[in-house]
Parts: sequence; C-alpha cells; structure tokens
Amino acid sequence: MKAVVNIYLKEGVLDPQGKAVHHALHSLGFRNTEDVRVGKQIVLNLKGEMDEKEARKEVEDMCEKLLANTVIEDYTIEIVK
Amino acid sequence: MKAVVNIYLKEGVLDPQGKAVHHALHSLGFRNTEDVRVGKQIVLNLKGEMDEKEARKEVEDMCEKLLANTVIEDYTIEIVK
Repeated sequence: MKAVVNIYLKEGVLDPQGKAVHHALHSLGFRNTEDVRVGKQIVLNLKGEMDEKEARKEVEDMCEKLLANTVIEDYTIEIVK
Repeated sequence: MKAVVNIYLKEGVLDPQGKAVHHALHSLGFRNTEDVRVGKQIVLNLKGEMDEKEARKEVEDMCEKLLANTVIEDYTIEIVK
C-alpha cells in the first residue's frame, strides 16, 4: 500500500523559498506568476496487512509526530492502491 | 488559474532525505514503512488570460528551465480551475 502525504505551509505563513522561486521565475521572463508556494511531498510504501482506514490512521500519526510541523504546516494524506 | 507541480527523484536515484525520514520513523516505532521518498510540491498561482493548454505549456517550460533538475528528477503538472 502506498501513501502520498502533501505538506504545505499554512495560509498566512511567510514562504521565503516560494518567494525566491517566484523572483527567479520573474527574472527568467515568466511574468504570469502571481504567487508561488513550495511544499513537500512524501511517498511512503507501507507493508503489512492493513486496510485503508488503518493505514490512514498510521500515516496521520506519523505526520503529527514527525513529518509535519503542525504549528506552521498543514498536510493531506492520500492512500493509493 | 492554479498549477500544482510535483517534483520527485527518478527511480533508481538515491534519496538520502527519504532514507533519513525512514530511519526516524523506524526509531519512533513505525515499523510498517518499507520505503520513503521525499519530493517537492510547488503551487503556482497564474494570472492573465490563458487556457489550460497554454498554462500547462508555460509551467512545463518553468520546470525545464528552473523548477526541476531533469537529470535526476521527474515532474507532473496538474492544472486546477
């Protein structure tokens, strides 16, 4: 079973990496970009016998304990296959 | 219009960040994880009058020129709204 976790900065939290990318894109001539936000995508391969609900619960636990900084980040979890 | 770009290491390319996360998860007691890969998710807000095809073309261009290192990374583009 595969889990895809997207971690992104909460709205309102400053994103200096996104700002830098935005600036670089602008310098390269891409003037149509209004705003850029950079987040993380973590793909986990899970082994063992679990159903989707159990897998989601476990990955949620991982996010709360390690993967995301919940003070400034939100996350979404998608269970695949 | 919004574009979501997922950038991830090509298969076969070593992912030390993923390995570190895997190790940390294991240390925390999450023994069901077989493999972890860490990638980037970039969300771009595009302005101006473009249809989906033009937007995709432009974002593809951004990926090739700046966002992705196509020697070791692959990317997917999703146009939203």
